[in-house]
Amino acid sequence: MPRNRRVTLAARPDGFPNESDFAFDEVDIPGPGTGEVLVHLSHASVDPYQRGRMSEARSYARPMEIGDVITSQSIGEVVESNDARFAPGDRVLGQLGWQEYAVARGGSLRKVPAALEPPTLALHAVGATGMTAYFGLFDVGKPRPGDTVVVSGAAGAVGQIAGQLAKLAGCRTVGIAGGPEKARDLRDLYGYDAAIDYKAGGVSDALREERVDVYFDNVGGEISQAVHRRLNVGARIVICGQISQYNEPRPLPSFHPGLLIVYRARMEGFLISDFSHRFDEAATRLARWVATGRLRWMEDVTDGLENAPGAFIGMLNGANRGKALLKIR
Amino acid sequence: MPRNRRVTLAARPDGFPNESDFAFDEVDIPGPGTGEVLVHLSHASVDPYQRGRMSEARSYARPMEIGDVITSQSIGEVVESNDARFAPGDRVLGQLGWQEYAVARGGSLRKVPAALEPPTLALHAVGATGMTAYFGLFDVGKPRPGDTVVVSGAAGAVGQIAGQLAKLAGCRTVGIAGGPEKARDLRDLYGYDAAIDYKAGGVSDALREERVDVYFDNVGGEISQAVHRRLNVGARIVICGQISQYNEPRPLPSFHPGLLIVYRARMEGFLISDFSHRFDEAATRLARWVATGRLRWMEDVTDGLENAPGAFIGMLNGANRGKALLKIR
Repeated sequence: MPRNRRVTLAARPDGFPNESDFAFDEVDIPGPGTGEVLVHLSHASVDPYQRGRMSEARSYARPMEIGDVITSQSIGEVVESNDARFAPGDRVLGQLGWQEYAVARGGSLRKVPAALEPPTLALHAVGATGMTAYFGLFDVGKPRPGDTVVVSGAAGAVGQIAGQLAKLAGCRTVGIAGGPEKARDLRDLYGYDAAIDYKAGGVSDALREERVDVYFDNVGGEISQAVHRRLNVGARIVICGQISQYNEPRPLPSFHPGLLIVYRARMEGFLISDFSHRFDEAATRLARWVATGRLRWMEDVTDGLENAPGAFIGMLNGANRGKALLKIR
Repeated sequence: MPRNRRVTLAARPDGFPNESDFAFDEVDIPGPGTGEVLVHLSHASVDPYQRGRMSEARSYARPMEIGDVITSQSIGEVVESNDARFAPGDRVLGQLGWQEYAVARGGSLRKVPAALEPPTLALHAVGATGMTAYFGLFDVGKPRPGDTVVVSGAAGAVGQIAGQLAKLAGCRTVGIAGGPEKARDLRDLYGYDAAIDYKAGGVSDALREERVDVYFDNVGGEISQAVHRRLNVGARIVICGQISQYNEPRPLPSFHPGLLIVYRARMEGFLISDFSHRFDEAATRLARWVATGRLRWMEDVTDGLENAPGAFIGMLNGANRGKALLKIR
């Protein structure tokens, strides 16, 4: 009789997470109740936002409790279904966590189209990270052809898509990432017009010739301060993430609002959940662009639930090359 | 033969301005060239933005040079005109500075409607500060009826209008100003629903029950940090001014952009010059609201060019009660 192996929160991380903040357990596989579906998971997502959920402070979402399965988007196959919309064998996506089996209400699941190859695309380019780039760039950043769009965390899960979407919208794209290998990926893989390795220093200097119309910010902190010095009049700063701050006990203020007067600029945050009524629009377009080769992607897959904490910590350190994923089986 | 008395920039202020940063001189009254108009000035405006122009750093406008007449909006009567649109006796408005006489191109002047009483309204409620409140609140802040609108520097030239415009738009208004007298003005004169005296401390506590939909920010710094803790989801932060920072050699970053994700909020700066194609719209409406008593205003008039530096320094210190103006004759 198989059991359900899970990764849970053992302790709230104090600053940067350690492996000891995670625990592993095995419990009975739950049976689905009325309207529920049992899913056998194959892959899970590894994302910066999970760090926020591990802290006690309530942000835009409820924090995890000690002992909870680590929250994540995951995909898998339906094993047993009490919801007429789902049948055994269907491939589905949901907030199902780092575990082998999950029970969820049918209404919280979405089908992964059978044509989507590989299906893990539903966890990134055609899923949450792709849609984050789509809504953040198009709806918040509002790029116009000819604009210069700078993306920080440009080789990351959202950044790799954001840069390509900006290119697709007729913009000049400048990506910022850490290390020469990622900088090469920005140019060779994701088609950025210019790539800046922030670990080589001098982000502000590297941007000297740029006037930034849209800044798609995934990182915050000093890198962003360097970009802010190169804004164009009418610039839009999309606050997608602030990964440099997620492990700071008290994030330092990094921005002087007076800059927004000088450049008549706008800085705006968003969550993809606010765009849920348009997920189909975004997923359809992203899938088409992936299928026609206009959108390239890269996965960084870690094998085995037991390696999930290491994958997560590595991702926060920028060690992943491409979208960080966990292969569960 | 009368001469032209002027107030000029003697030195760039180092931090907070001193009287010695200003000089007085007397020169011949200039004659108007082709297309130019000679104006005998009666009143000039005293505004925070002038501080920015005294610094060497180029911001959104060219800095003043040492020896330049202090730049300001001023009104006066046409004495001699080489522009067919203006005749002697016309009352006009322009960027004419702290001096008794000014020559300007006709195209840079606007007529002050004869019906405007007092004509100094063209320097505030129906002029630049009124229009700053109008475009900043309505076009950038986009208030909806029922919204809570918080205004800092609420008893100041722009703030007193912004709060009343928000009220007119069906919003709850909360004003922040320094000292019990100003707090009383906010409630009794400008109709704010709630008034906070920041000098009494505890701005954040005083806002405990509020969820801020629009923050019209004139001051920046710690007061704004307190307001940022009380944002509502979807909040809009209008960066109109940052007067608390204008005399800092290096303004400290005061804002953590990650907040904008938590609240899916927008922070945006603006200059009224970007709305110049709509000045007539704003001036017409503001004048109507003033005439019908829906918009109240207060002037703080300093008499004599020789007292201009003191009036300016006092305004930066918040000593004025109402719009700071200079009476030239």
